[in-house]
Amino acid sequence: MPGVMELLPREQELHRDLMRRIQEGFARFGFVPIETPAIELSEILLTKTGGETERQVYFVQSAGQLEKGSDPELALRFDLTVPLARYVAEHEHDLVFPFRRYQIQRVYRGERAQRGRFREFYQCDIDIIDRDELSVRHDAEIAATAASVLHDIEIGAFTIRINHRQLLRGLLEQAGVADVSSQSDLIRHIDKLDKIGPQKVASFLIDGGMSPAAAETLLRHTATRTTSHDEGLAVLGDLADGPAGGGAESLMEVFRVLADLGVPEDRYCLDLSVARGLDYYTGTVYETVLDDHPELGSISGGGRYDDLAGQYTNTHLPGVGISIGLTRLFFQLRDAGLLPYERAVLDAVVTLMDDDGLSYALEVASLLRAGGLRVETHMEPGKIGKQLRNADRAGIRYALIDGGQERTDHTITVRDLVEGTQDTVPLEKALAKIDKG
Amino acid sequence: MPGVMELLPREQELHRDLMRRIQEGFARFGFVPIETPAIELSEILLTKTGGETERQVYFVQSAGQLEKGSDPELALRFDLTVPLARYVAEHEHDLVFPFRRYQIQRVYRGERAQRGRFREFYQCDIDIIDRDELSVRHDAEIAATAASVLHDIEIGAFTIRINHRQLLRGLLEQAGVADVSSQSDLIRHIDKLDKIGPQKVASFLIDGGMSPAAAETLLRHTATRTTSHDEGLAVLGDLADGPAGGGAESLMEVFRVLADLGVPEDRYCLDLSVARGLDYYTGTVYETVLDDHPELGSISGGGRYDDLAGQYTNTHLPGVGISIGLTRLFFQLRDAGLLPYERAVLDAVVTLMDDDGLSYALEVASLLRAGGLRVETHMEPGKIGKQLRNADRAGIRYALIDGGQERTDHTITVRDLVEGTQDTVPLEKALAKIDKG
Repeated sequence: MPGVMELLPREQELHRDLMRRIQEGFARFGFVPIETPAIELSEILLTKTGGETERQVYFVQSAGQLEKGSDPELALRFDLTVPLARYVAEHEHDLVFPFRRYQIQRVYRGERAQRGRFREFYQCDIDIIDRDELSVRHDAEIAATAASVLHDIEIGAFTIRINHRQLLRGLLEQAGVADVSSQSDLIRHIDKLDKIGPQKVASFLIDGGMSPAAAETLLRHTATRTTSHDEGLAVLGDLADGPAGGGAESLMEVFRVLADLGVPEDRYCLDLSVARGLDYYTGTVYETVLDDHPELGSISGGGRYDDLAGQYTNTHLPGVGISIGLTRLFFQLRDAGLLPYERAVLDAVVTLMDDDGLSYALEVASLLRAGGLRVETHMEPGKIGKQLRNADRAGIRYALIDGGQERTDHTITVRDLVEGTQDTVPLEKALAKIDKG
Repeated sequence: MPGVMELLPREQELHRDLMRRIQEGFARFGFVPIETPAIELSEILLTKTGGETERQVYFVQSAGQLEKGSDPELALRFDLTVPLARYVAEHEHDLVFPFRRYQIQRVYRGERAQRGRFREFYQCDIDIIDRDELSVRHDAEIAATAASVLHDIEIGAFTIRINHRQLLRGLLEQAGVADVSSQSDLIRHIDKLDKIGPQKVASFLIDGGMSPAAAETLLRHTATRTTSHDEGLAVLGDLADGPAGGGAESLMEVFRVLADLGVPEDRYCLDLSVARGLDYYTGTVYETVLDDHPELGSISGGGRYDDLAGQYTNTHLPGVGISIGLTRLFFQLRDAGLLPYERAVLDAVVTLMDDDGLSYALEVASLLRAGGLRVETHMEPGKIGKQLRNADRAGIRYALIDGGQERTDHTITVRDLVEGTQDTVPLEKALAKIDKG
């Protein structure tokens, strides 16, 4: 089926390992896990979304409901944010605020399948939600967590580009666009800077009524991308006096806390072109690109929003979050030959050359398993050459061999299929000969 | 929404930990991971199923398809076996056989929500598939893996009850039922022994044409449940001469390999009442019950089947597998107050009493994180009492406190919220004061 992800076991193991690293990184920064059902009530999922998202929703019906021809009451989640909003509203009285959750689950979008677009894919989200007010320092925590996790998955150098919606609105105000709704329209154009270039964005701005001079000034501003912590603070200091002052002050605090959190200064920058298309965001916005592969686009994005769950609860719930699109990232890295490392799917195979050796082979396997290794055993005797070839094909590095003498001597031959070496050792020494993959 | 599972973070962490243990146990026994999409083509999912399953399927349609009123082309998987069959058929030439996979994913059933029934729940499956023939010794491996994993999740004593379809058919033949299809019907009745008792099953058998004497003999046989390895082998030895001889010989080999694999003999038994309702199974069948809580029913079941994917490929693919219904098990244990252990969702919280302490607090947090701990930090100063209460409520055991003097001395106060003790130590000693939860 096109547009779905499906991997062979060796790649699945690597995908799983990336996911595990992301999860552990989220937990180290104090985020706690939740999972929500893939199926939600349609009315919950579609409460506040516009036409575009609604067209992407997959509706779900049981056979019985389908026969009745009734409107579908259920749908598959298309992101993890709407389910989070419903979750927080539903469990509000059982949660401790600020509520810091991570969620790594699949989401579903009924788009036409095309290259790089998936109908079913993993998102890895963190959000911090508080009641009434949420300190801007958490905006730095979110970016620091993303920086730590992206470092841990070893995908190469990256930069988290940070901007603030109020900065953009301030710049637009300076360019003569005072109306908030017009600002939002133009922010959506600015969001396309990376894709269509400043020339085209300028013509959109001018078509929208901006003077060519104002458009030029604006685009000169949005071309700002700082290259050090101090430069970031200096640019923000300059902006703090203008109409975007509030945003600049907030980002200065974000920058200071990022440094306190030990994030290396080449992992983040101020980038006044970062817009994030969604109206949803009201403060800090983030996008992350791989330094050596900007062509892959943003691998992680997010930002600050005023109120998470206004449609489900009267409690005012400001939040900030970021999302890593793991599936898209994984396939992009794979297709570009950039997957960061190999991970063995199993550690060792215990071969079997003759039927009398079964008990001893199973004893060997049990011993290695007790040592934490992942071990396959041959249950029927076969040609050793074929058993070794199959192990190599499955990506297993070590083969344990008992040719008959070993069981008599209570030894085992450990063959390293990568190095092509082997060594016969007392059984209790076998574990030490094997590197866990 | 009724019939879905949703947990608060502390329980979610425990659920996740159980899942992790199961996954690691599967891998130790040489199983490799796969994941398949939740959404499959309806024609794939419904190829061979009868009316009952079809009525439980959730169909999936995009908004566009729904408008067109066309028949849904997509559906959500209702188990992990049909997707495995499709996966093996599709990727046959890229897999190494015997193919040993584990798969831990959610499945979806459009049943009316009722107590203990879920519309969306996790299954944890292992299967071993080979081409043409699969050694019966793998039937023992499957049971040994399940035994190891169920031990690892610490849910108390359990017994894997093992039977063989040919044994049941042999007993039915002895009772005068020679027709295979009639045998299958009666096996479905025998499957209900645990639920409705021998009296009612007897009347079903007699209604089906069996003589009362034959029914009594049959039910005396199915009441056989052995209590030791040797007793199992002895009973099987007796049965080996009858019409069920093939099945008895197979199970004797299964028993011998179970012992070679080091499975304690009180973890498995021969139970001639185990039937498994599905026609699907052709050889060994398993069911697992908790010794102290038989009322929870079978927590894990499976068996041997002749051909996995006959509807998708001409390759003959015999297999054997077992499934743990994790979601149902988790909720049963929770509701019965039997969840095996607590698991802390975070290890420590770094409190903040005054704004000048932020940098030091974040330094403390970074240090603990570098040591692998899961650490939440307060980003705004607040009352220490409230911060400690919130930590306790969130299940966090350790609080790191800097009252002002600590940052001057480069020390930190480590408070154990469970013991109610605290100690001020040099910062570099803090890590050693904290037990990872």
